[in-house]
Amino acid sequence: METKAARRAGWSTIVAVLMGLVPGVAAARPNLVLIVSDDHGREALGCYGNPAVKTPHLDALAADGTRFTQAFCTTASCSPSRSVLLSGQHNHRNGMYGLQHDDHHFQSFAGVRGLPVRLAAAGYRTARIGKFHVAPEAAYAFQTVLSAGAANDPATIGRSPVEMAEQARAVIEAKDERPFFLYFASDDPHRANAVLPDGKPTFDTWPQPNRFGNRPEGYPGIDPQRFRPEDVRVPAWLPDTPACRAELAEYYQAIARLDQGIGRLIALLKAAGKYESTLIVYLSDNGAAFPGAKTTLYEPGIRLPLLVRAPGRTRPGAVQEAMVTWADITPTLLDVAGVPAAAGECDGRSFRAGLDGAALPGWDEVYASHTLHEVTMYYPMRAVRTRRHKLIVNLAHELTYPSALDLIKSPTWISATEQGNGMLGRRPVGLFLHRPKLELYDLEEDPDEVRNLAEEPARQTLKAELLAKVKAFQAATKDPWVRKWTYE
Amino acid sequence: METKAARRAGWSTIVAVLMGLVPGVAAARPNLVLIVSDDHGREALGCYGNPAVKTPHLDALAADGTRFTQAFCTTASCSPSRSVLLSGQHNHRNGMYGLQHDDHHFQSFAGVRGLPVRLAAAGYRTARIGKFHVAPEAAYAFQTVLSAGAANDPATIGRSPVEMAEQARAVIEAKDERPFFLYFASDDPHRANAVLPDGKPTFDTWPQPNRFGNRPEGYPGIDPQRFRPEDVRVPAWLPDTPACRAELAEYYQAIARLDQGIGRLIALLKAAGKYESTLIVYLSDNGAAFPGAKTTLYEPGIRLPLLVRAPGRTRPGAVQEAMVTWADITPTLLDVAGVPAAAGECDGRSFRAGLDGAALPGWDEVYASHTLHEVTMYYPMRAVRTRRHKLIVNLAHELTYPSALDLIKSPTWISATEQGNGMLGRRPVGLFLHRPKLELYDLEEDPDEVRNLAEEPARQTLKAELLAKVKAFQAATKDPWVRKWTYE
Repeated sequence: METKAARRAGWSTIVAVLMGLVPGVAAARPNLVLIVSDDHGREALGCYGNPAVKTPHLDALAADGTRFTQAFCTTASCSPSRSVLLSGQHNHRNGMYGLQHDDHHFQSFAGVRGLPVRLAAAGYRTARIGKFHVAPEAAYAFQTVLSAGAANDPATIGRSPVEMAEQARAVIEAKDERPFFLYFASDDPHRANAVLPDGKPTFDTWPQPNRFGNRPEGYPGIDPQRFRPEDVRVPAWLPDTPACRAELAEYYQAIARLDQGIGRLIALLKAAGKYESTLIVYLSDNGAAFPGAKTTLYEPGIRLPLLVRAPGRTRPGAVQEAMVTWADITPTLLDVAGVPAAAGECDGRSFRAGLDGAALPGWDEVYASHTLHEVTMYYPMRAVRTRRHKLIVNLAHELTYPSALDLIKSPTWISATEQGNGMLGRRPVGLFLHRPKLELYDLEEDPDEVRNLAEEPARQTLKAELLAKVKAFQAATKDPWVRKWTYE
Repeated sequence: METKAARRAGWSTIVAVLMGLVPGVAAARPNLVLIVSDDHGREALGCYGNPAVKTPHLDALAADGTRFTQAFCTTASCSPSRSVLLSGQHNHRNGMYGLQHDDHHFQSFAGVRGLPVRLAAAGYRTARIGKFHVAPEAAYAFQTVLSAGAANDPATIGRSPVEMAEQARAVIEAKDERPFFLYFASDDPHRANAVLPDGKPTFDTWPQPNRFGNRPEGYPGIDPQRFRPEDVRVPAWLPDTPACRAELAEYYQAIARLDQGIGRLIALLKAAGKYESTLIVYLSDNGAAFPGAKTTLYEPGIRLPLLVRAPGRTRPGAVQEAMVTWADITPTLLDVAGVPAAAGECDGRSFRAGLDGAALPGWDEVYASHTLHEVTMYYPMRAVRTRRHKLIVNLAHELTYPSALDLIKSPTWISATEQGNGMLGRRPVGLFLHRPKLELYDLEEDPDEVRNLAEEPARQTLKAELLAKVKAFQAATKDPWVRKWTYE
């Protein structure tokens, strides 16, 4: 028999559902803020275990939301990764095989309907600020471009995140019933184009470290955080040299700047009373701009920070261990927004059910696909990453592994190759540059990914299983490179 | 003292100049007809020495105009070669690094102003019919598209050249003062996509030859010419197998069809009284669709037919031995049209002064640049070809030489590899697939390009000279791949 109390509880539940306060159920059509940093590695956040770096606002976001520990990009290259983020399709499927700018000139297919386009069609107001670096415009169109500019151009706003946040006020505070989607993309902490006296850009700073956008005059609203080389944490995959430490110190300063800008953005959301009705996502497009990370499919390149603060979250500080990739971001945000994507349109899937930290069974492996970075850097790789293992297939392994201009001129690289002992962290430079077709790693026994088990008799069954998975992935995602198995 | 006769002769000369009848001076602003065939090799025309093939109309054009004996494409790949033809820029400069269609998805830079755009700006009326296969539309825009369709789509008009000529009537016969530029691009004699019963296309025709567009019902206005395998001429670079002969027979039939269509086009020009005021150019985008030609930088791939009939020509049947490339076509046609190109805008230059067969000093070497064909076929090559020698630099030589789908499934290829003696003509298949970084050939002693002299002590000076030329060419044409010399 239903008591009056039970009836009231029943109604409360209904109201709570409607108000989005029941655990796991987000408010219908929340605002969406997707913060994408540029080359921010997972090894450089406080909440991911680095005691030296200063990221108080990101740490606070993690403490108030959910921190994903097994989040991966699918390709550690800027434009390709961003195309995956904004389409839910692997870049070998959406057409952005390599970088978008200048003579690299890659772009997604005209028929791609990216996240902002779909959200606008569903009644969201959409705005972007900062780095874009994808094309064509129509596939990834935002209604409002708050401030744009060429990728990593020192004259653009991407290095000035507090200013970026202030410009985003217009979107946050607008008197508009419609929910908003804000895409907030910093240039930090990417390496900076140094500018020579004659105005030409260069990455040739040896022996001085790249400045990562740091400059004597600072940036509006930023309290510069400087780091001493002796205080940085040199990850195992980098050479512990003075040049590397000096560069990490600059990198940390850029991260601290970024963090302050994000802090301002979050403060503005709170001040506008929108924090509780906004899904905030923080992630990086790919790993740090240091050799052995960005442009590789090694852990430092692909395993990345992902922090989410969802409306109605009930478990602040939750840790999510489901394995997700950037191909899942568009499906997830569309799901949160209540916008159905057609079956098969995305390669990724929604992890909305896990935003609050709830365990997600069946999310135990991810796939990566990289083809080019710069147009001259053809090095297609396909990989499967399970909880314990990684198999990388290097489809053009005969080639010397090509290095991006900013990395090959970095003092860190020079200190390891010309000046050093021939080791890049725990990997010989020679093996970094000349790789076999298959790389098989046991990440539990060998987290540094330096002991290739591909030829071990005891691992042949495992290798065959993983290889079959990679091929199936290629077929399922319409990978043009799947034909290499038949014809070469 | 000037006699009355001399004065009259003087006036006649002036009038003749104005009328364009003085040798070497083309009529001001003639009509321009650029006929581009698809994969028509130089070894398959009567006027280039093949007694078995039937090309009476092309032969007549050569007999009435100028036949170029040292004409070359710069890259033996469809879209890239067409982008060079229509821009005057090497494809590594204009952005069309590989094929345009489907998932290959390459396109020129937005700022490219192709030949039809410039001619339209100068007051020409421009029209195209048949194969296009370049992008973006705006860079290569024609005012009128008589009939279009996807490259090599059986449903399009590209296989029906008499119909194409009939559609071009509208342009030829129009009552319009302005001169016209007609771009007439056949799909012949490209291999055909066979269509399976389920409607899917395939190149898997073994053991039957590819039909090269030939079909039982024929084409409007075409008198089908069939050839017996025993009557074809197997060039030295192909395997003399039944499968190859059968394919050559089909290829010849497609060429005969193409020739009849061109015959119709020329007849229409004559009937309209426009033949004498039209510059007619016939060429092929690249060499024959047989292994060892198309997509390589060997002679069968790059040395091509070029026939020109210029208004006011005084030496019918002239032979021009200047070394020219498809990068010179746009500058030449612009020159003929009296449209100046800005300095440095094109990589090629005008050979207008040689259209009538006059010797051109200083035209004694050409350059080739190939990067991709299909998007999975990354194999960048740069070459210099002098009167006697060729140096090819294979920038990714470690890779297995990739083969286009239509070639690798061709019965000709299968007959050489699986069925044959491991030779592709005079070249071992193994050396075709696995190449050294440098290939140096003496074309006088070794026209088959099978004796690589790159390591010969006696040729090191020559090699160094040619290599220096290639690097200078790369720098001068803003080749992104020039950085490979420094970084790998």
